[in-house]
Amino acid sequence: MSSSLYTTDNPVFSAYLFYCAILVLKVLFMAPLTARQRFSKRIFISPEDTTLTPKAKVKHDDPDIERVRRAHLNDLENIPVFMVAALLYIATNPAYFLAVNLFRIFTIARIIHTFVYAVVVIPQPARALAWGAGYAATIYVAVQVILFSL
Amino acid sequence: MSSSLYTTDNPVFSAYLFYCAILVLKVLFMAPLTARQRFSKRIFISPEDTTLTPKAKVKHDDPDIERVRRAHLNDLENIPVFMVAALLYIATNPAYFLAVNLFRIFTIARIIHTFVYAVVVIPQPARALAWGAGYAATIYVAVQVILFSL
Amino acid sequence: MSSSLYTTDNPVFSAYLFYCAILVLKVLFMAPLTARQRFSKRIFISPEDTTLTPKAKVKHDDPDIERVRRAHLNDLENIPVFMVAALLYIATNPAYFLAVNLFRIFTIARIIHTFVYAVVVIPQPARALAWGAGYAATIYVAVQVILFSL
Repeated sequence: MSSSLYTTDNPVFSAYLFYCAILVLKVLFMAPLTARQRFSKRIFISPEDTTLTPKAKVKHDDPDIERVRRAHLNDLENIPVFMVAALLYIATNPAYFLAVNLFRIFTIARIIHTFVYAVVVIPQPARALAWGAGYAATIYVAVQVILFSL
Repeated sequence: MSSSLYTTDNPVFSAYLFYCAILVLKVLFMAPLTARQRFSKRIFISPEDTTLTPKAKVKHDDPDIERVRRAHLNDLENIPVFMVAALLYIATNPAYFLAVNLFRIFTIARIIHTFVYAVVVIPQPARALAWGAGYAATIYVAVQVILFSL
Repeated sequence: MSSSLYTTDNPVFSAYLFYCAILVLKVLFMAPLTARQRFSKRIFISPEDTTLTPKAKVKHDDPDIERVRRAHLNDLENIPVFMVAALLYIATNPAYFLAVNLFRIFTIARIIHTFVYAVVVIPQPARALAWGAGYAATIYVAVQVILFSL
């Protein structure tokens, strides 16, 4: 019987732990990024949020806030599926070098994506390329899992 | 000590690898589905996206684009939680036949959901039934995990 | 070679199964919470949904429905990343007492978050505190994983 690949004896799993935890913090970081805009503009999402800040109002179309929220939604569209795909990919017992670089590329690409989308707006195709690198890494990993499981 | 169920010696885990990777690709497929609408209508989500396409504009209420985005959001509401629930379900050591068919029903239901919602709009209750099949499968799996862990 | 921590011999993993399955059901519960508002107000999200209910209409800015949807989106922003972070955290072989209480705090915090946001609206900082407890638990878990994997 084969032993589990999901132990820290497996360097691919250890690398996954590291990059995946970085990605968790990266997604969580979208909250203070949104809050910074909301408090500086005093624009909140729900009526009950306006009671603690003077002159606060509810508004759902502020361009700077919606920009951060779109970056956050794009994270939700891309990061959880990568986390799951990469977890499955470990079961295919991939080469360490390849696996680590896929995790690294995805993680860096998603950090760049948020930076060029919602921190300093950089003209396209900056965001498209960052998104595409993460997207391509996820497709590669998912296809490898399917080929392995056939 | 019981050995890990998360190895490819366990046919339920192997089936999970396959269906879960299909679901990852299914969620990723929402991006080209959205892009197809955006480029054909020249309607984009952020101002910087309009510079590469002539006559492009920003608009957030196009019915065809918003339809694809709603299907995508519905995926995010349902697919990651199923992926996690099914991963936990493997630990309950379920019967192979039952587990594989739950994975299969969920996967097919979600593909049909997107098709009837955002590719060819089919009257209700088509979408409600597709959504409900995936929803019921997720509840069943989650409840089995809770009963097992008590 | 170390044996897998992802078996029910590990009480931390068993606790994870329980709390994570509760969280899955908690996220799924947002759907009937939204549907209850939609059917009582006869306000639906897509044109094809209005054919089965008399006097139904499409509207995207009803405050009560959008409130439930914001609570749902906040779940998607916070719960899947916690589920993944906690899964990784198990690999660090944490003390049972600490791990179980982190899972418990997160789960209870998210249930309270939905209650004060979308069931009975309770003035701030109720929602901020519930959100913050879950957020802090996720950061703690993710940072522990990073420190462990260095």
